[in-house]
Amino acid sequence: MLKRFLVPEADQVFVKEEAVRAATEEIFRKMSVSGEDAALMADVLMTSDLRGCESHGVSNMLRNYITYYEKGQSNPKPDVKVLRESLISASLDGDGGLGIQVGPAGMQIAIDKAEQTGMGAVTIKNCGHGGMLAYYPLMALEHDMIGVAMHSAGGRLQVPTFGSEPVYGTHPIAWAAPAGKMPPFVFDVATTQVAANKLMLTRRIGSHLEPGWITDLAGEPVMEQVPSPDYGGFLMLPFGGTRENGGHKGFGFATIVDIMAGILSGNGPGYVAQDDWALFVMAIKIDAFRDVTDFKNDMDVLLERLSSMKPTKDHDRVYYAGLMEHEEIELRKREGIPYHREVVEWFNKAAEKLDLDYSLP
Amino acid sequence: MLKRFLVPEADQVFVKEEAVRAATEEIFRKMSVSGEDAALMADVLMTSDLRGCESHGVSNMLRNYITYYEKGQSNPKPDVKVLRESLISASLDGDGGLGIQVGPAGMQIAIDKAEQTGMGAVTIKNCGHGGMLAYYPLMALEHDMIGVAMHSAGGRLQVPTFGSEPVYGTHPIAWAAPAGKMPPFVFDVATTQVAANKLMLTRRIGSHLEPGWITDLAGEPVMEQVPSPDYGGFLMLPFGGTRENGGHKGFGFATIVDIMAGILSGNGPGYVAQDDWALFVMAIKIDAFRDVTDFKNDMDVLLERLSSMKPTKDHDRVYYAGLMEHEEIELRKREGIPYHREVVEWFNKAAEKLDLDYSLP
Repeated sequence: MLKRFLVPEADQVFVKEEAVRAATEEIFRKMSVSGEDAALMADVLMTSDLRGCESHGVSNMLRNYITYYEKGQSNPKPDVKVLRESLISASLDGDGGLGIQVGPAGMQIAIDKAEQTGMGAVTIKNCGHGGMLAYYPLMALEHDMIGVAMHSAGGRLQVPTFGSEPVYGTHPIAWAAPAGKMPPFVFDVATTQVAANKLMLTRRIGSHLEPGWITDLAGEPVMEQVPSPDYGGFLMLPFGGTRENGGHKGFGFATIVDIMAGILSGNGPGYVAQDDWALFVMAIKIDAFRDVTDFKNDMDVLLERLSSMKPTKDHDRVYYAGLMEHEEIELRKREGIPYHREVVEWFNKAAEKLDLDYSLP
Repeated sequence: MLKRFLVPEADQVFVKEEAVRAATEEIFRKMSVSGEDAALMADVLMTSDLRGCESHGVSNMLRNYITYYEKGQSNPKPDVKVLRESLISASLDGDGGLGIQVGPAGMQIAIDKAEQTGMGAVTIKNCGHGGMLAYYPLMALEHDMIGVAMHSAGGRLQVPTFGSEPVYGTHPIAWAAPAGKMPPFVFDVATTQVAANKLMLTRRIGSHLEPGWITDLAGEPVMEQVPSPDYGGFLMLPFGGTRENGGHKGFGFATIVDIMAGILSGNGPGYVAQDDWALFVMAIKIDAFRDVTDFKNDMDVLLERLSSMKPTKDHDRVYYAGLMEHEEIELRKREGIPYHREVVEWFNKAAEKLDLDYSLP
């Protein structure tokens, strides 16, 4: 992540992952989620925090999830149904469960089908927020597979190029491939200029947004540096930004997500489905195409070249997607996760309010 | 395409597609390509010109193809070999044939496998330039399938974010999905800020490049408006441009292409394989996931919403990928294709030089 999204040092409180994981599981169980699902959902969030992707960990979303459960907008005990199935595919109805609850099982089905046939893809309609999307393709890596995920996230935020009204959410895409001795390639991006959760981080941190990141409520790009506005006070440009800078490419990739996750699942276009979100996940077995060892050797050749290249001036290194996150995991497992003190305070207040036993240091 | 890439009106010569198609076929046959393949290859180029994508039609590439054949760098009679095959996949060796020659048959295999199982994917190593990449996913549409294509194009042009040396070519991605009454979604973009062939067009046309489109030979982004430099005088940024504007997303998508087309095919990373290029194509059968009619209805709902939306000021319309191209096909079939006069002159000189019968008006 860019520096502007990091918690300022003065506000950092280092907490061991085990403590936050246990607290998060307790919270989910209190929301009537089963113990097994609570552990899984906590794993999705903690994997994000360990990777240095705190935008999608417990800091932002956990309090929202609680609100959804309290308002009855998320189903803590979803009865996932298979709507259609083939040798290589399954279409699921998530029964209103959060994406972080029903998504991993969907990816597991894709992996199982890919194990049998070479490729597997699963759509999930009618689900909620899927957390850090990289979680799903990451599941494929240990099976020597390439993993793909896309997430249709409603239609209230992202305007099309030259458009005055929002039709998509941040509509992220993630893609991962294993390597040999190098850390794997793990790519996960919003198709907007910036992820909504990162805007939430900038509000906590007080940093600014760059020109061409957002639009006003009429879809006109905001072309100066501005403080992060509140939700409801802005819309978002597709990545690339303006047309001259290639915003139509972000718009196109966002449309791919709306088609693969939203429409192919039967959930419908994001701007129609709104709060019912949808996922598309896919696993591709490498040895259907090529020997796994040869593939991984070539991955090492590429990734070593990228990460050892002389950087341009004012930069200290070239990072391919997944490299920085891999290093962050090792660091954070050892030293703890640097949460904003406000997040730690929130956890401890939540324990009191929900009558739970944990207490974070 | 942006206006800067269009042929200026004063230089336009309208030619009927049939005449250019016949001339192109004649040229390929003269290069020892079989009649059947020559017709197919001309179709790839003419489909590009009809869609208004003249960057990838006969204007730029045909003269290069002739040079490749004359220098023995392309094999006009490739003996394509199946290296590995499964229910859902095939890995092909293109035997040095141009991508426009061996790619369509590869996509047909993917479609045939998807017809049987629901999904099919094919890699092709050791091939040349694939033309307009949208051609391959377009083939899937009439089978009620979603089509995907990626093309690893060597490693001499695109620098990674913060990198000082090139590792990728323009590494394009294309994705298409059918609709009901609306023109289909057909997306096809370079993962660089701008396609190499569009830079060639700007040189013919004399227009400028925007800040953040290219870098100098040390990988430093050129942040002012400049005339289009000659090949060898610049490198290219991933789409998004600088890191602050999201160039790491373009870099990530380019890496996906290098992995799916270059490494999964066995061709190797683009910067290693260089002039041996590679393709990845995939077909996804819609009714493996959902009834085709319902899918197409939802596509219409989305595409109508996009194309009928009030545009922002100074713009007359929102175009989704494939809409402008669809309208251009109708126009150009009726009125002819507006080639640059230099291109028509080149064709007629080529007829003389190669002792062929055609003559363009």
